Amino acid sequence: MITLASDFGSPYPAAMKGVVLRRSDARLVDVAHDLPRQDVRAAAFWCRETLPYFPPAVHLVVVDPGVGTERDALVVRVGDHALVAPDNGVALPAARRIAAEVCEAVPDVECFRYDYDDPASSTFHGRDVFAPAAADVHEVGVGALESLDAVSPIESVPPDGSPDSVVDCRFPEPTVDPDAATARGEVLVVDDFGNAITNVPGSFLDGRDGDTVDVNGVSAAVATAFAAVDTGERLVTVGSHGFVECDVNRGRGDEAFDLAPGDEVVLVG
Amino acid sequence: MITLASDFGSPYPAAMKGVVLRRSDARLVDVAHDLPRQDVRAAAFWCRETLPYFPPAVHLVVVDPGVGTERDALVVRVGDHALVAPDNGVALPAARRIAAEVCEAVPDVECFRYDYDDPASSTFHGRDVFAPAAADVHEVGVGALESLDAVSPIESVPPDGSPDSVVDCRFPEPTVDPDAATARGEVLVVDDFGNAITNVPGSFLDGRDGDTVDVNGVSAAVATAFAAVDTGERLVTVGSHGFVECDVNRGRGDEAFDLAPGDEVVLVG
Amino acid sequence: MITLASDFGSPYPAAMKGVVLRRSDARLVDVAHDLPRQDVRAAAFWCRETLPYFPPAVHLVVVDPGVGTERDALVVRVGDHALVAPDNGVALPAARRIAAEVCEAVPDVECFRYDYDDPASSTFHGRDVFAPAAADVHEVGVGALESLDAVSPIESVPPDGSPDSVVDCRFPEPTVDPDAATARGEVLVVDDFGNAITNVPGSFLDGRDGDTVDVNGVSAAVATAFAAVDTGERLVTVGSHGFVECDVNRGRGDEAFDLAPGDEVVLVG
Repeated sequence: MITLASDFGSPYPAAMKGVVLRRSDARLVDVAHDLPRQDVRAAAFWCRETLPYFPPAVHLVVVDPGVGTERDALVVRVGDHALVAPDNGVALPAARRIAAEVCEAVPDVECFRYDYDDPASSTFHGRDVFAPAAADVHEVGVGALESLDAVSPIESVPPDGSPDSVVDCRFPEPTVDPDAATARGEVLVVDDFGNAITNVPGSFLDGRDGDTVDVNGVSAAVATAFAAVDTGERLVTVGSHGFVECDVNRGRGDEAFDLAPGDEVVLVG
Repeated sequence: MITLASDFGSPYPAAMKGVVLRRSDARLVDVAHDLPRQDVRAAAFWCRETLPYFPPAVHLVVVDPGVGTERDALVVRVGDHALVAPDNGVALPAARRIAAEVCEAVPDVECFRYDYDDPASSTFHGRDVFAPAAADVHEVGVGALESLDAVSPIESVPPDGSPDSVVDCRFPEPTVDPDAATARGEVLVVDDFGNAITNVPGSFLDGRDGDTVDVNGVSAAVATAFAAVDTGERLVTVGSHGFVECDVNRGRGDEAFDLAPGDEVVLVG
Repeated sequence: MITLASDFGSPYPAAMKGVVLRRSDARLVDVAHDLPRQDVRAAAFWCRETLPYFPPAVHLVVVDPGVGTERDALVVRVGDHALVAPDNGVALPAARRIAAEVCEAVPDVECFRYDYDDPASSTFHGRDVFAPAAADVHEVGVGALESLDAVSPIESVPPDGSPDSVVDCRFPEPTVDPDAATARGEVLVVDDFGNAITNVPGSFLDGRDGDTVDVNGVSAAVATAFAAVDTGERLVTVGSHGFVECDVNRGRGDEAFDLAPGDEVVLVG
């Protein structure tokens, strides 16, 4: 199985699929091709929230603002999963979560360089570098990827470590005060529904269901279901990612709370 | 085969696919993930217009404004098709059409409750309840779904009946006068082309090709092809769903006729 | 394998897939369903840039502003690929490229008429004509498609020829002056990134990397990577299709250069 994620929109992913299918009869599963454009951190977030649900697979992840520059192509192996991606950090958060939560014995995050030269284009390495790489890793098998001539090991780190010679991506850490009455964090992404997903752990809301909290001074009900508040009303809930979200029942939380990715959020319970 | 339909946009459907693929190697086919958001009636319309074309399958349908509340999860079986959906009516119109038009001997619409408790999230039952349910129904087989511990029968109704203890979804009925010179109906949905699809049966236009009809007082040609009128001109035609549509050749009918879902349409021939 | 390309948006492609899957268990691969709406030339461009990357397949291409009129349905065979499409030219550029670049011995482009009568709808031949045709061609095999009763040969042409009795689609030819200091061409399409893709061959930029060129009087750097210029800055590059593109690093070239499909571009190096 090969999953595909990119910010390519349409129809460029089709060229990647064609290239893969010339080399492999793997099952292909689209993760998303409308990841926030050239936004490595947001793409890393969404990969972390989707890829760990898959069975062992080769995950092709191409959000690549550095295409055509000297940046490396990577293969990151965690157990029987492999991620094929540019060396810009986009694959690391997903790899760490797969290692920590999905694999039976927590494996290291093993980083490999994938050598390429003279791709047919300088602007579409998704088609000319990463798609062939993913197909080749799939065909040789994740456990045997070292046998590919193009692959050479860089370093391995435990899931809580950061590699020295590979670009990492870390999300900002929130601060939650000892009595948990205040949390200070950041909006990581806004999803298609308009839910503003923060980095504040859902545990901040433990025991507050039915109460209200202030979000940057705006009061909102704490609820476990959108429909617990009236249509159009704000709510704060623990989203499916385990973080505090600022939402509106049948509406857009980002607009109602005036929040965008990167904005600071101060929650007072 | 498992088909997937939702209003989740992107990339949430990928998490559902991952969950399914951990439990099943079924073929997955996306129906749509941009169904009108939290609009059960519109989603029910589109499921009715697409799912009956598929061979026997498990159809996962998640448009679920009541997620996290007490609403049940359902499995609806019609012949060798099964629909897995929240108990809000979204699956019933498709189930009825599959029963009436697709299955050889018209089967009953059999409704089952799918028990679940403590899903990992309160806001993403597509991932945590419905995807596992669809995979499990697929793996045990539609004909044997009663053998799943989580499944218990509620009631069965013929395709022209409405269940008593399951939420139904019925589209409004148009009124067509006896000599068929006037029809009064409603816009059910507007499609991506901007075609305003009404609930008036296409038979209203029988014998009128080349004539004109008034739509809420606006005159338009009756035609069987968009290209029968000039670019940018209005036309009224029988759409692929069998209903009267208000369209524009290479343009948007909803704008030209000033029609939105839910609007009344009075057709005078 | 059957690939699917259309301008249908969502969820109409699902009905096509259902129809195919009732007749065939072919692997289905979506190319795009948001091709520029009813724009045959743009759709032909994108098919030419994606379909040749696939292994042998039946390619279903439905961009069909003439649906419901007398226009024919075609099957175009090139080697072991077949394209199923309306007779409006949309399939020809891809067919020619597959013949010229993909097949081992350059085959002719063989055009066949696919007869149909009384489809269930007059507005959705994707579902009622082309999907069954693609499935039937797949099932009988591309090499044996003549054995289908509905199929009759029209004519065969070499890849550099144009058929007499089938609608063709040709892209405009640019003019490049002998010393290659000036090229006059046209924007063929704008992609999802906002890159304005012209018909000027990339060779126009040979040896100019790091120089500047004027695009309709606006100066821009020539570069082989977006990141070679600052964020928000214009660049001119050879795109993945081999043509000169007018782009912006992490921005939209169409807006920065004020270019839309069909616009003339004069490049002065």
